[in-house]
Amino acid sequence: MCNNHKSMTTTRVLSVPSAKASFEKTTIERRELRPYDILIDIKYSGICHSDIHSAFGEWAGGIFPMVPGHEIAGVVEAVGSEVTKYVVGDRVGVGCFVDSCGECEYCLSGEEQYCTKGVINTYNGLDYDGNPTYGGYSQKIVVTEGFVVRIPDGLDMAVASPLLCAGITTFSPLKHWNTGPGKKVAIVGMGGLGHVAIQFAHAMGAEVTVLSRSVNKKEEALKFGADHYFATSDPATFKGLAGRFDLILNTVSANLDVDAYLSLLRIDGTLVNIGAPAKPDKYHVFSLIMGRRSIAGSLVGGIRETQEMLDFADEHGIAPMIEVISADQVEESYERVLKSDVRYRFVIDISTL
Amino acid sequence: MCNNHKSMTTTRVLSVPSAKASFEKTTIERRELRPYDILIDIKYSGICHSDIHSAFGEWAGGIFPMVPGHEIAGVVEAVGSEVTKYVVGDRVGVGCFVDSCGECEYCLSGEEQYCTKGVINTYNGLDYDGNPTYGGYSQKIVVTEGFVVRIPDGLDMAVASPLLCAGITTFSPLKHWNTGPGKKVAIVGMGGLGHVAIQFAHAMGAEVTVLSRSVNKKEEALKFGADHYFATSDPATFKGLAGRFDLILNTVSANLDVDAYLSLLRIDGTLVNIGAPAKPDKYHVFSLIMGRRSIAGSLVGGIRETQEMLDFADEHGIAPMIEVISADQVEESYERVLKSDVRYRFVIDISTL
Repeated sequence: MCNNHKSMTTTRVLSVPSAKASFEKTTIERRELRPYDILIDIKYSGICHSDIHSAFGEWAGGIFPMVPGHEIAGVVEAVGSEVTKYVVGDRVGVGCFVDSCGECEYCLSGEEQYCTKGVINTYNGLDYDGNPTYGGYSQKIVVTEGFVVRIPDGLDMAVASPLLCAGITTFSPLKHWNTGPGKKVAIVGMGGLGHVAIQFAHAMGAEVTVLSRSVNKKEEALKFGADHYFATSDPATFKGLAGRFDLILNTVSANLDVDAYLSLLRIDGTLVNIGAPAKPDKYHVFSLIMGRRSIAGSLVGGIRETQEMLDFADEHGIAPMIEVISADQVEESYERVLKSDVRYRFVIDISTL
Repeated sequence: MCNNHKSMTTTRVLSVPSAKASFEKTTIERRELRPYDILIDIKYSGICHSDIHSAFGEWAGGIFPMVPGHEIAGVVEAVGSEVTKYVVGDRVGVGCFVDSCGECEYCLSGEEQYCTKGVINTYNGLDYDGNPTYGGYSQKIVVTEGFVVRIPDGLDMAVASPLLCAGITTFSPLKHWNTGPGKKVAIVGMGGLGHVAIQFAHAMGAEVTVLSRSVNKKEEALKFGADHYFATSDPATFKGLAGRFDLILNTVSANLDVDAYLSLLRIDGTLVNIGAPAKPDKYHVFSLIMGRRSIAGSLVGGIRETQEMLDFADEHGIAPMIEVISADQVEESYERVLKSDVRYRFVIDISTL
């Protein structure tokens, strides 16, 4: 318990005043601590591709001014009167959402991301009181303890931050679709999500194949634990790998030739999308019928599973490969992300804010 | 054992000489019985929509002359020297395929329809010796005993025949996707497949909703066991049923508004297609991601499951509603199927051939 935060906390942030506007350094108020709240002193905040879509106003319903960031790693600075899970000084993380109804079947089963009432996004959302949420490009954040996870001692805090979105977004579907020994898993795309997915799938015991446009990243893919690497720009890839995979995890946001990827699946295999293109994808129903195949999608993961993912990463030495930047380099890093010029995730050092 | 079929059997058939040509009554030779073969005296043969696609040459690779028919019910007339499963006089059925490699993992697990070497279709196929297969619009057929199922005593033979395709095509995915008590299942389309799917889903214990273009078939749907019936031509249907179903079984071959149907699924729900439109379907990946939903397809079912389906139909009094026609009415019935003017399956009385 900590009584010296019975007031709002002023915190410095990187804020976008309106869609596509430049970032401004300014301040916002974080709410007074409620009994179950935790005040986090943010150390690092990862840059996710969805930050760019949001800040650019490319997705409907953008709320401005906007403070992006949902890959948050920091240290507990204060706790509310009823907090039991954490004490001041704990290393903690916050991911894509900061609240949910807590009562629906999905919340009760630990899959808050599918909350019936609607999960409260870490930024660009409205909380249940109707107040806008502001994310991790910020020195401090206040989050209820149920939506805070512990960063294991073995994980570097900067490296851990991308796990809060890129990590759980890949870990959850790999687990859900039974990745493990004897399974053949393909990872499509080797960016911020893909390079972490390779590590998880390998650590889970699967035979991992990377499918990427060119062969440029082959050497790194093998270091991350991939067993095979093929360029999708080569038509021979699709012929040679026909009927091979139990699971294809598509991390790419561009439209795919879905039928071509479905042809790579075994009977009962699944193509799971975690990247979402703006335009619809197309497929022939025959591609599904002839092998009882499925096309699916998956959205991040629940809080319990996020903790499980961090512990798994710690245990198996899984680490996003990051480039730490200062607060002044965010716009430049956005441009580089859009050019796929990042290996593989930018992380903002919040001490520079 | 029966020694009086050590020669080929001449049999009358309804044959299409070339794509879209008229049916001709002619004769073909059925092969001499091999040790595991069964000669079946066909009594009834159902008309499946795919017979029409095939006879019209709408699917690539049509082999003409063609004798359609893969919903075959008859009586064992003779058996090969090594046959143990059946004796002369047994009531038996044959479905969509008549052979498979028997050695691949799918054959070994009783899912011959996904045979790695390629299943041998009952008609419009080539057997492993390279000879064309001819189907059930025929007085006799020779099939190896492993691909013959027993028609339970309680099932009328004419009524049983559509179960060999329409029955197993709906039963298999309902079982595979865990239809049972507590599950909400929607059946899209109420034709030859749909009206049987309602009965199976109801008998399995699910809450069954029919989604059909108009309300015309509501009364019959409720008699088949549906709990609810909604017209998809009414936009209120999609609003009112949002997030409701665990499983949607789509029996329609036309292109769907896939996103609209996905919106009717619960978290982790699946839209399973058993009808295949010629043109691709479209969907937004977000429709899948936001609820970890899936789009899938399913192809008939294995021989063991086909037997299970027939026994289940017998036990639960499940019966396709049929219109028995003579061999001279096949072309007229094709026209009526194309106009959806059948409730719900035509069955040829082979004694009229």
